[in-house]
Amino acid sequence: MSLREHANIIIKAALDAAMPDTAVRKALAEASFPEGKLVLVAAGKAGWQMAKAAHDQLGGRIDSGVVVTKYDHSKGPIANLDIYEAGHPVPDANSFRATQAAIDAVSGLTEKDTVLFLLSGGGSALFEKPVIPESDLEQLTKNLLACGADIVEINTLRKRFSAVKGGRFAQICYPARVFTIVLSDVLGDRLDMIASGPAYPDASTMEEALAIVEKYNLPMTEQMKQLLLVETPKQLDNVTTHITGSVRQLCIAADKACRELGYEPVILTDSLCCTARDAGVFLANIARFHAASGKPMAFLAGGETVVHLTGKGLGGRNQELALAAADGISGMNAAVFSLGSDGTDGPTDAAGGFVDGTTAGVLRSQGIRISDVLQNNDAYHALQKCDGLIMTGPTGTNVNDISVLLIG
Amino acid sequence: MSLREHANIIIKAALDAAMPDTAVRKALAEASFPEGKLVLVAAGKAGWQMAKAAHDQLGGRIDSGVVVTKYDHSKGPIANLDIYEAGHPVPDANSFRATQAAIDAVSGLTEKDTVLFLLSGGGSALFEKPVIPESDLEQLTKNLLACGADIVEINTLRKRFSAVKGGRFAQICYPARVFTIVLSDVLGDRLDMIASGPAYPDASTMEEALAIVEKYNLPMTEQMKQLLLVETPKQLDNVTTHITGSVRQLCIAADKACRELGYEPVILTDSLCCTARDAGVFLANIARFHAASGKPMAFLAGGETVVHLTGKGLGGRNQELALAAADGISGMNAAVFSLGSDGTDGPTDAAGGFVDGTTAGVLRSQGIRISDVLQNNDAYHALQKCDGLIMTGPTGTNVNDISVLLIG
Repeated sequence: MSLREHANIIIKAALDAAMPDTAVRKALAEASFPEGKLVLVAAGKAGWQMAKAAHDQLGGRIDSGVVVTKYDHSKGPIANLDIYEAGHPVPDANSFRATQAAIDAVSGLTEKDTVLFLLSGGGSALFEKPVIPESDLEQLTKNLLACGADIVEINTLRKRFSAVKGGRFAQICYPARVFTIVLSDVLGDRLDMIASGPAYPDASTMEEALAIVEKYNLPMTEQMKQLLLVETPKQLDNVTTHITGSVRQLCIAADKACRELGYEPVILTDSLCCTARDAGVFLANIARFHAASGKPMAFLAGGETVVHLTGKGLGGRNQELALAAADGISGMNAAVFSLGSDGTDGPTDAAGGFVDGTTAGVLRSQGIRISDVLQNNDAYHALQKCDGLIMTGPTGTNVNDISVLLIG
Repeated sequence: MSLREHANIIIKAALDAAMPDTAVRKALAEASFPEGKLVLVAAGKAGWQMAKAAHDQLGGRIDSGVVVTKYDHSKGPIANLDIYEAGHPVPDANSFRATQAAIDAVSGLTEKDTVLFLLSGGGSALFEKPVIPESDLEQLTKNLLACGADIVEINTLRKRFSAVKGGRFAQICYPARVFTIVLSDVLGDRLDMIASGPAYPDASTMEEALAIVEKYNLPMTEQMKQLLLVETPKQLDNVTTHITGSVRQLCIAADKACRELGYEPVILTDSLCCTARDAGVFLANIARFHAASGKPMAFLAGGETVVHLTGKGLGGRNQELALAAADGISGMNAAVFSLGSDGTDGPTDAAGGFVDGTTAGVLRSQGIRISDVLQNNDAYHALQKCDGLIMTGPTGTNVNDISVLLIG
């Protein structure tokens, strides 16, 4: 088998393990719910798949529920669940309406009842209900961005003005129990970060929020000033959380597939966050050293790299990572491939890119200089010319990216 | 012992193994020379140390010799060797004069004679004698840079106009044998690249040189046109080459020291060439995954990273690499350190940088934001404030950098 065929096997194994339905089935297999009502709330880009898997398993046991996912992400009605589609990455009126429906559905429950809360990537925008006028929130976000606040600072403040973020959704569910299943797209699985943690104790404090307001001298309405004095929950006794889909699982499944194909695999990290280009170069550097050993090896990295836009071409971080490795592994019996688990890499129809020891030569013979392509962020068109695009179509999951170096 | 003390032990072991005298002694231990004359030629920043080590070992067996090193790099006379200091990184009249003296010393030798050729970093500028007027060479270099030619293209052309590069020095030595000892500062130990390969068959061809002239439409004098038609040597039967100091040895020695300290070491690469900042982030990403195992591990990478200047601060690639890892390992029992084997990192008096799980907190408490420091390329001053500078002084060797992640 060729390295490309090996790559396809590894990709399939990794994606299978990270599918929302696999994740939900795995988490529900060990769950038991008390006698009372069971209300399902699913939020995120994989919301429909997670809800469907839960319904397939629990069926009539579910009393009612609300699903909110991105536009065009619903695949149809599911029994007695109300399904909403809403704005992402920017929340819109439908996000607020769906979230209000979820709040209504879990309000007034008793301690015998359970909320099955299914959370996936995109939940931060899709599951949101501000408690201040929308225009005030927009102005705050603008001010924060203008003064260079970082994402942690922005989220610390936004949680204060949300009805559901920062553990507040779990507070609304109380005294009902909340059984959360998370398909994580946040590196390191920080549960207070995923969708801004609607059902997880908030790590940020009132003091920190006030300090940020002071630091940037942010204008606050009277209502906002009052809300800043309300602390987010620091302890939530009614919540249990299961992370069952995450980039770590993606890595572990790929690692297992590599081993079965005869490679000695090394997982480097499941929180890769450097630039895509340099991650590719680093993997090629690793290839050069270990290829000399003659032993089939695989190095795996899960995570979410970043791309600095310097051109106007077409591509994505995974395609850029792979292409950036091509020169370094030129002539070697090695391959580097990288893909987004959701099947879409950047604004393209490809999931990612694949390069091997022949890629650089093939491109050179067509007059294509890789450094120029990278400078123009145009990996898609270059990979297209050397059969280097990985096409999976939308996969229905979203647990970040995986990058693999194979040394044959 | 602390991680910092471990780092110091690893640094000492690695540098000891990469010293020019160690390298020369090791290579000469297995060498035997025929009855005839023995002429020593040493070129490079470690030229003096390599010549001294050879003289200490072979003493009166050396008939004559020429040493050319950088200004202020000679430590005094060595018996019957002529010592020159010259310009680096830009060759000057002293480079040309010293190289001519070397040419004279090896001209007219017989097949019974041997040239002991000691090559180290900086040799490309220090060991050079153009065969065209200096002004023509300067104009060519300017033209090549102006039209965006890459370093491979530049070297391919420059070799054509040099009396010694591209294997031509070995041709002058012929029929004498050339015994080359290389202290390598070129990643991957490409022998035709180190100092442009004075005693190594040239991989670039006449056709390639002509294609570059045509591609960029470079103006050529009549003399240059003639010289372009002379092929560089593709086979040199009179040469044997020993690479005894290189970044690979640096990595292997560090790997051994890590193992003796109880770490399970993994050499990732000996040809790291991505940006310093991203290499640091990548190492921190690796730390986060493996720290969970509770097993002391070390990940090593040798090479030469690059820095993109975005500010006007003080620092070097190794300091920047280490500092870029500080946020990612914050709170962990881990350390990242990186240093240049020559003991000088960028335009500073430090060899490199050291950070551990406390560094980010210490800097934060002093109001220092690491992202700002990196943006300003000012790692030196930040590391100074957290005891994070590695000071070795000039080491007398130059085999690139080593970066180490320790997980305690």
